Amino acid sequence: MAGSSIGNIFRITTWGESHGAGIGVVVDGCPAGLSISETDIQKFLDRRKPGQSKFTTMRKEDDTVEILSGIFDGKTTGTPISMIVHNKTQRSSDYSDIANYYRPGHADYTFDQKYGFRDYRGGGRSSGRETIGRVAAGAIADKLLREIGIDIFAYTSSIGNIVVNPNNFERKEIYNNRLYMPDSNAAKEAEVYLTKCIEKKNSSGGSVECIVKNIPVGLGDPVFEKLNANLAKAICSIGAVKAFEIGDGKDVAKTTGLDNNDNFYYDKNQLVKKESNHAGGILGGISDGSDIFIRASFKPTPSIYAKQKTINKSGENIDIEIKGRHDPIIVPRAVVVVEAMASITILDALLVNMSSKLDNIKMLYSRTD
Amino acid sequence: MAGSSIGNIFRITTWGESHGAGIGVVVDGCPAGLSISETDIQKFLDRRKPGQSKFTTMRKEDDTVEILSGIFDGKTTGTPISMIVHNKTQRSSDYSDIANYYRPGHADYTFDQKYGFRDYRGGGRSSGRETIGRVAAGAIADKLLREIGIDIFAYTSSIGNIVVNPNNFERKEIYNNRLYMPDSNAAKEAEVYLTKCIEKKNSSGGSVECIVKNIPVGLGDPVFEKLNANLAKAICSIGAVKAFEIGDGKDVAKTTGLDNNDNFYYDKNQLVKKESNHAGGILGGISDGSDIFIRASFKPTPSIYAKQKTINKSGENIDIEIKGRHDPIIVPRAVVVVEAMASITILDALLVNMSSKLDNIKMLYSRTD
Amino acid sequence: MAGSSIGNIFRITTWGESHGAGIGVVVDGCPAGLSISETDIQKFLDRRKPGQSKFTTMRKEDDTVEILSGIFDGKTTGTPISMIVHNKTQRSSDYSDIANYYRPGHADYTFDQKYGFRDYRGGGRSSGRETIGRVAAGAIADKLLREIGIDIFAYTSSIGNIVVNPNNFERKEIYNNRLYMPDSNAAKEAEVYLTKCIEKKNSSGGSVECIVKNIPVGLGDPVFEKLNANLAKAICSIGAVKAFEIGDGKDVAKTTGLDNNDNFYYDKNQLVKKESNHAGGILGGISDGSDIFIRASFKPTPSIYAKQKTINKSGENIDIEIKGRHDPIIVPRAVVVVEAMASITILDALLVNMSSKLDNIKMLYSRTD
Amino acid sequence: MAGSSIGNIFRITTWGESHGAGIGVVVDGCPAGLSISETDIQKFLDRRKPGQSKFTTMRKEDDTVEILSGIFDGKTTGTPISMIVHNKTQRSSDYSDIANYYRPGHADYTFDQKYGFRDYRGGGRSSGRETIGRVAAGAIADKLLREIGIDIFAYTSSIGNIVVNPNNFERKEIYNNRLYMPDSNAAKEAEVYLTKCIEKKNSSGGSVECIVKNIPVGLGDPVFEKLNANLAKAICSIGAVKAFEIGDGKDVAKTTGLDNNDNFYYDKNQLVKKESNHAGGILGGISDGSDIFIRASFKPTPSIYAKQKTINKSGENIDIEIKGRHDPIIVPRAVVVVEAMASITILDALLVNMSSKLDNIKMLYSRTD
Repeated sequence: MAGSSIGNIFRITTWGESHGAGIGVVVDGCPAGLSISETDIQKFLDRRKPGQSKFTTMRKEDDTVEILSGIFDGKTTGTPISMIVHNKTQRSSDYSDIANYYRPGHADYTFDQKYGFRDYRGGGRSSGRETIGRVAAGAIADKLLREIGIDIFAYTSSIGNIVVNPNNFERKEIYNNRLYMPDSNAAKEAEVYLTKCIEKKNSSGGSVECIVKNIPVGLGDPVFEKLNANLAKAICSIGAVKAFEIGDGKDVAKTTGLDNNDNFYYDKNQLVKKESNHAGGILGGISDGSDIFIRASFKPTPSIYAKQKTINKSGENIDIEIKGRHDPIIVPRAVVVVEAMASITILDALLVNMSSKLDNIKMLYSRTD
Repeated sequence: MAGSSIGNIFRITTWGESHGAGIGVVVDGCPAGLSISETDIQKFLDRRKPGQSKFTTMRKEDDTVEILSGIFDGKTTGTPISMIVHNKTQRSSDYSDIANYYRPGHADYTFDQKYGFRDYRGGGRSSGRETIGRVAAGAIADKLLREIGIDIFAYTSSIGNIVVNPNNFERKEIYNNRLYMPDSNAAKEAEVYLTKCIEKKNSSGGSVECIVKNIPVGLGDPVFEKLNANLAKAICSIGAVKAFEIGDGKDVAKTTGLDNNDNFYYDKNQLVKKESNHAGGILGGISDGSDIFIRASFKPTPSIYAKQKTINKSGENIDIEIKGRHDPIIVPRAVVVVEAMASITILDALLVNMSSKLDNIKMLYSRTD
Repeated sequence: MAGSSIGNIFRITTWGESHGAGIGVVVDGCPAGLSISETDIQKFLDRRKPGQSKFTTMRKEDDTVEILSGIFDGKTTGTPISMIVHNKTQRSSDYSDIANYYRPGHADYTFDQKYGFRDYRGGGRSSGRETIGRVAAGAIADKLLREIGIDIFAYTSSIGNIVVNPNNFERKEIYNNRLYMPDSNAAKEAEVYLTKCIEKKNSSGGSVECIVKNIPVGLGDPVFEKLNANLAKAICSIGAVKAFEIGDGKDVAKTTGLDNNDNFYYDKNQLVKKESNHAGGILGGISDGSDIFIRASFKPTPSIYAKQKTINKSGENIDIEIKGRHDPIIVPRAVVVVEAMASITILDALLVNMSSKLDNIKMLYSRTD
Repeated sequence: MAGSSIGNIFRITTWGESHGAGIGVVVDGCPAGLSISETDIQKFLDRRKPGQSKFTTMRKEDDTVEILSGIFDGKTTGTPISMIVHNKTQRSSDYSDIANYYRPGHADYTFDQKYGFRDYRGGGRSSGRETIGRVAAGAIADKLLREIGIDIFAYTSSIGNIVVNPNNFERKEIYNNRLYMPDSNAAKEAEVYLTKCIEKKNSSGGSVECIVKNIPVGLGDPVFEKLNANLAKAICSIGAVKAFEIGDGKDVAKTTGLDNNDNFYYDKNQLVKKESNHAGGILGGISDGSDIFIRASFKPTPSIYAKQKTINKSGENIDIEIKGRHDPIIVPRAVVVVEAMASITILDALLVNMSSKLDNIKMLYSRTD
């Protein structure tokens, strides 16, 4: 089934395997008139590329984006924007042995069962490289959202048991350390912890948080197209995500109405504000104008170098030791992926919301007519 | 935007407000030949109806379902199944005062901003009564899934700080207590806790878990139609859900690859098994044949009787005390809603998966031809 | 599969069989703030109801619409509008014999093959009564379009060999005769012709034309969501339509570029005009501001009283004579259905087009923000 | 809006402008296990490539397809198949003058109005080159359909007033003449006629017919997903198509029920047959097992060399003479495009139909489980 697309109006379709000709995305439904260049997109891709540090895979992937369509004189034309990143340095030989067994924590077994066989090179379609298309599309969404003042950013919020300290949170620090953490102390601790993980041929889980600022009130639609529901789908569609939270998230289960309700008030400029933001910026599935706050929990990289038990396709229980170059943690490179999926989802909701009331329609068509 | 539908092949569309003529659902894409009756559906609706105990609202709602189309001689015909529950005992007068202010934790403000005005009677479209349509549709999905051996059930897993003890877990106990908990001790503790909440004019959060047994391998599609992504959307589209987890959920962020990977092995019948199920039955977005395990965290009921600060539409900061009859906790009545959304999502994935490989197509059309 | 819905933003879902409890429609994605009443909708339904003359079936169907949701204080709320027409005077006994044979020109055989069995009462889901839902939804679309000045109307353009004479075309005449023809002479001739058809136990084909006036430039999207492509689907989804034409339609195959191209010019007010309108108001799939002109060709009513050969389910070739009350021609009652499908399609394209350019987005969100 | 995709399960997304880097398509939802190669696809593309004769544009376009993803060991993997045809010999200079005026019969004006500006090189996105993506996708659909015995082919049925004579119809002749006509005499006449058109700096319209043989009963869904409705959309989404007909098409408006109904009978093998096929293989929107017959009417190429009146963007009425290399008729190269759109639509309906009845589901999942 056509599972490679997401979005209603701003709709992206990704394609490509880790060891095929390349990875790409078609962005359809992008409004015309947005200035965009390959440089704009490359900036985002560089944040997910491998080889940034010893905490990301040492594979040197030359992930250079090429725009194939949809841009004219530096601006989007309203027609589909096709982008490609050619796969250059993939070595299929590294993966030939995994054709015959099923790696724990990977999609090898489920793909084989679903389709009858699979492209076993580097995970094929379930490879993390698929996210290149998401990030390229997210860069476009981000640029458009900034045109109307919306600001989206994500960061590593925890690695193993090391959690970012809110008192030590500095937004600009995110881009200063190799783990994309907004807390320099936590980043240092995490580097120590990850180094130990690598020594033990093990890997670590972690979490990413994402904040949306200056979002208009009204995005998201009852009942099934709630903004939080679409964010949940978008974020949980990223491989390795096992939990999605919005606002206070899982903690709400332990709290009470008096503590969890966010009281409204008028500020001195008679603007509507909330005394707190336990809701994470969404009420009834619709943005309320406060910051949107989401958190994604990532499982540890399933590809570890330690010996593991598994099965092969000949009906045998076997031991394996995975070769190749793998990240000891998924999270740092996934930060920009979470950001991208949030941007894509918010932009789509923003476009969908344009037709929510008759007044909007009258305003646009009385002008256009 | 058309936000009232969910599903690709098995697709449901809900409609109705809490104080309109009724609440309904159209189930489209249900395969022909399934035996279904109003009794089958009523059983599910009775699990969400109010007035079951002092822990659910004392409103007496006579939620009787009527099937209007799509069934002939007791079987689904393949055409849309329209179902309605008439609203009978709603009293609009209870709600007239909320027209002018915005209740904390509710969608009053966001609806007004999005649409220019709202149906303020009882929450209108954002009322919990909307879930009647989901439950009715879920009953049909459940019946079909059972025809091929799939078993889905949900239960209250925590209320406030009281959590179900796995050692005291009994499936049949779920339907023995008024809180739908599978642990009789936890249920008793929770009753005491909730009684205190009521006394304090407060409300409590809680969580629901849902398990899918005997699911075929292969459901869910890469990349955006991952089974877990669609479950995340379906569950997070239920009002009051603030977190979605699959398998070990949020805990994976703290763990390591060695601990989190589920090793495969062949059992004595040469069947593929996993030594553990941290993944919650899904690998690469596709069901792996193990039990699917999901958890939803619900915020406390926002309608509490204690005094709260908020704003009115005249630009004033005011105090309010909410009247009417409200559940002190959403969770017990939401158990069947979570179950319904899981059933709908699993069935849709099951139908979508039919065309995953050429062999399936040849098998069906060589017979039909 | 979920085949009972159409539209992207303005999306309708119809349900119901001719002999079930009723026929209905859920209109989702209708912008908030539109004044609409049951009277507005009933006017449209009355144009398709049976028993209007001897040229429409003499069945007396009391097709009274009831709005069940989505309207508050006389205005659309932005949430789904559910409407129902109860089936009142259907007599199942009339149809009991057709359970065992397949009527020529009907869907009896294909439904049985597709689904394994069928609701054989009165055509079940393939009954013309299904169009009630379309007409009710079309009434809402029409009302909204008129708010921004768009005018859509349809009429009978031919019956058998009797074709409306453009020189005798009067719009108001459409509602003056029982055949909805804009040419009173043609209407008289057609009545004579149809009377003969009835005498011969036969039926007649015919055609319907539909014109859209004052449409903004820009509706419709390349490549697959061309306005004409969506109109084609919408119109061809009406049972009995066997041809769809836009502008000069089928005649373009015989013409040349010099004759078929519509030259542009600036009129005295410097407005863009075309010297002709062979294109029927659409260039490159996008509305050009000229009148949209479409034509649908309807086959004769397949239910005729004359003796016909067919087969039964026992493997026999048999003769049948169809009983019951049937229209000698489908066209007059289908006029409002064509109009409805055009309105629904145009409105959807109008809403979709709102996000075509960044300027529109800036205009709306700079205000809302 | 995301208008570049079509299909429900087998879903294609095209991208690219005539003078950008290339033209491409992503085919999502193709079942796994189908053998497919670039050679399979190139065969189809060669039938639409320019420069085949003096009756097609003399532009030499080296339309060589490259498969970028979705194939492994020569077979489809179930993941998206991305294909690209690089634009090589496009000369932008030919088109620089059209930036400032609106060609009659083209989408120049409507694109400018809709998006605020346009990629004016060679028609940009509204260029006929966009159909490359459709044809590449159609080649895959065709190959899969042939695996289960379905045979789809199209041909030129008329050029100007020259119509194929059914008595002289030879299927293999289609590929013997440069106009893809199944009647060698008609082809000769048409060549003479087209030569005159060229001399007069004029162009001609024409029509294409398409036949689907050996189609299973049951494809297509009531109400809006009727097979004929989806064929209508698919065919009318091809630029220049102004009429779509199925079966007897437009002629049904003039006929009677007795003449138009196709009587059923059992043949000597007790197979269900129809005495005639006025319906064109579809009853109630569902395939009945007879040949599907569709016809598309194409307008003449709007780019003609004769002088034409039009407007420029400076507010002036002007005369133009279009330069460049243009087909004197669209039809011969459009034959394979019609075939492709039919194949795509039929395959999608075939996949959708798999879940029409519970028996199918039981059959597949009892085996898979």
